[in-house]
Amino acid sequence: MPPTEAGRFDPARAGQLSARALSLVERRRRLLGPGYRLFYDEPLEIVAAEGVHVVDRDGRRYLDAYNNVPVVGHCNPRVVAAVSRQMATLNTNTRYLDTALIDYAERLLATHGEGLERVMFTCSGSEAIDLGLRIARHATGREGVIVTSGAYHGTTRAAAEISPDLAPEFGLPPQVRTIRGPRPFEGPGMGERLAAEVAAAGADLAAAGFGLAAFVVDTAFVSDGLVTEPAGFLAPAVEAVHAAGGYFLADEVQAGFGRSGEAMWGYQLHGLAPDLVALGKPMANGLPIAAVAGRAEGIDGFGDAVRYFNTFAANSVSIAAAAAVLDAIAEEGLIANALRVGERIRAGLRRIEAADPRLAGVRGVGLMIAADLVDPGTREPDPAAAARAVNDLRAHGVLIGAVGPQGATLKIRPPLPISGEDADTLVDGLARVLGSPPG
Amino acid sequence: MPPTEAGRFDPARAGQLSARALSLVERRRRLLGPGYRLFYDEPLEIVAAEGVHVVDRDGRRYLDAYNNVPVVGHCNPRVVAAVSRQMATLNTNTRYLDTALIDYAERLLATHGEGLERVMFTCSGSEAIDLGLRIARHATGREGVIVTSGAYHGTTRAAAEISPDLAPEFGLPPQVRTIRGPRPFEGPGMGERLAAEVAAAGADLAAAGFGLAAFVVDTAFVSDGLVTEPAGFLAPAVEAVHAAGGYFLADEVQAGFGRSGEAMWGYQLHGLAPDLVALGKPMANGLPIAAVAGRAEGIDGFGDAVRYFNTFAANSVSIAAAAAVLDAIAEEGLIANALRVGERIRAGLRRIEAADPRLAGVRGVGLMIAADLVDPGTREPDPAAAARAVNDLRAHGVLIGAVGPQGATLKIRPPLPISGEDADTLVDGLARVLGSPPG
Repeated sequence: MPPTEAGRFDPARAGQLSARALSLVERRRRLLGPGYRLFYDEPLEIVAAEGVHVVDRDGRRYLDAYNNVPVVGHCNPRVVAAVSRQMATLNTNTRYLDTALIDYAERLLATHGEGLERVMFTCSGSEAIDLGLRIARHATGREGVIVTSGAYHGTTRAAAEISPDLAPEFGLPPQVRTIRGPRPFEGPGMGERLAAEVAAAGADLAAAGFGLAAFVVDTAFVSDGLVTEPAGFLAPAVEAVHAAGGYFLADEVQAGFGRSGEAMWGYQLHGLAPDLVALGKPMANGLPIAAVAGRAEGIDGFGDAVRYFNTFAANSVSIAAAAAVLDAIAEEGLIANALRVGERIRAGLRRIEAADPRLAGVRGVGLMIAADLVDPGTREPDPAAAARAVNDLRAHGVLIGAVGPQGATLKIRPPLPISGEDADTLVDGLARVLGSPPG
Repeated sequence: MPPTEAGRFDPARAGQLSARALSLVERRRRLLGPGYRLFYDEPLEIVAAEGVHVVDRDGRRYLDAYNNVPVVGHCNPRVVAAVSRQMATLNTNTRYLDTALIDYAERLLATHGEGLERVMFTCSGSEAIDLGLRIARHATGREGVIVTSGAYHGTTRAAAEISPDLAPEFGLPPQVRTIRGPRPFEGPGMGERLAAEVAAAGADLAAAGFGLAAFVVDTAFVSDGLVTEPAGFLAPAVEAVHAAGGYFLADEVQAGFGRSGEAMWGYQLHGLAPDLVALGKPMANGLPIAAVAGRAEGIDGFGDAVRYFNTFAANSVSIAAAAAVLDAIAEEGLIANALRVGERIRAGLRRIEAADPRLAGVRGVGLMIAADLVDPGTREPDPAAAARAVNDLRAHGVLIGAVGPQGATLKIRPPLPISGEDADTLVDGLARVLGSPPG
């Protein structure tokens, strides 16, 4: 969840809610505190979901083009059956021998390159990043970390410390350095610019006595505004990290599990061999499980030296769900579908863009899609227009989000089983709320 | 999982395993690395479980007197039904309105005292401790933390930093101070000793410029060897913390959810009012969910100032399971059962203790039970005997663990639905493996 949340509920607007919604909002505030934010000017009360659709309490159906966690579709029957079966049989931890755990680890590692030989499990993407940082720091004997200026990597203290987009309460500590993130359509030389900034930050960390432990990036740069092109632009920066003796930790919590439509993992689009990979959100379609895959060296050194046991991580039920997700991705052809339908959505958005100067920068791969709302005169980002579009689309029965440094970027990332017809619904809905001429 | 693991599998003994077990052990090592430890000289391959029993691949049934996570019993039918139903209906996050989440938060807070008005959810006990530390540090504007010398609080970096029992890879940082933990049967003056050590550590942190943010303790002191008596011994230390302006963070990951047989929460046995409480393991009987409950002040200040969103935390399915756990505890009378059966187990252990000089220090409340194995001559802790007892009991069909500073303390903490007959099986099994005279 990147923190720039255009279109989220503003408690000052509570007076405009229905009596029921107002009561729920007030109870939430009283019981959960102010940290719990809601989507939309008029928050949604979802009571059921199936595939790429959710249903609210009034029976209204919405196309869910926002939630990337239920990657194989809400209530995917394979996952539901696997979880129900495992719940009734056994749910325990990794201190016992378990073929399902071992088989899953083997299947998961087989989707990675040859260099990634080991996997350790956690409960959340934040825990995966936190563990990845512990491993990288242990392996290098150094503390320094480089991230992009728009980075979001999680909510444990160690993950929040490397998440400038959160503006963590204690600020960025001195061992964390930022480089300017890649910008959409930045143009030639971006890869070399990133590499030069990484090399400079690494030298700076060395001079300050921290040294470079890790370079951590979301391989789709979602909270930097979604930057996936040109292909391979990240390679020079990773070379610079390796030249400085640091680890490259690829955060696949957003890009992983086939969302790109071209590969299982975002780093594969860059032709890279990470030292560590953090996996998260879609891994078990919403049941908590995440992981760090890595080269044997780092993981073995850490595992030999440090006691690490994570009670819930890789519990029998989460593993059953995660295995069903791999089954569904493969057997339901979801990566190919992400490619096909993603391209259809982008084509539709480009038709709007061609006719409407308020929409710009349509981009993405597969079912990670972004476009900016801009002032038609100045072409500057227009966060208010983005918030309005997100809320108006919700009123039209389509759920998307907004993201990016200014919160003016529409974020579209539906479950992978979305159909071409659903894609058209999404594009037509956006055209309608923008009042654009039909494409 | 306290790290002192008497009785765990030693890879050097792999040659003594069956061909199947050896193959699984080798695949685990190759795929998961050396960090993944197994219980027992001969690791168990569990394939099914029900109530307080687990079944291995050969169909052998074991009394599970070790696993505290399935608090309402393995595969509790209420939990299985709730999860299966919710999985087929909806699994989403906290960005939408959801009565089940709000109702659960209200029920959970009602089990605490009046001072605890808010709850924030996480995926694991480690994340709960990590978040609790963030809240305490934000509220106090200070960094210092005091823990006991045997403390274990989790596996994120911030949690591992306050877990001396883990001997974290980077050592304890200067803002973390330890006091000597309470010792079983330490005798009069323990409460005052703890308070004096807390006051001194707090003064020391102030002098060093860190200040005291929080005093964090497992209210049953499990990794210090299980210390629950005399009643209220923790109160003076907490007074000292409050006098120094620090937060008291009660870690209920071990003691919570009725295990003591006398109250829902361990801190209630001490008559205390914590500022923050971390909840974990048994919360949803094994599905990942944990929480921080706290006074409004700390949680509101943090929630107003800091963006915090935890994707999987309080997902619809984990909340359904957690609600079913509260139902089961109440409707199946499990707290009263913990009191009754726990006392029966302790009475049985005391009969062995009276007849066998190798068993000493039977203690605990409800279904948190410990006893030490000691050298009959010197009365010193005998970790080898504890490891032998744990492994021999496994061979006799009873699962327990070992814990404590020397790993010589038997740890007994079955699911709460254990029967009196099961209790007798456990006690008789221990008498048999010790070769003690029948009680």
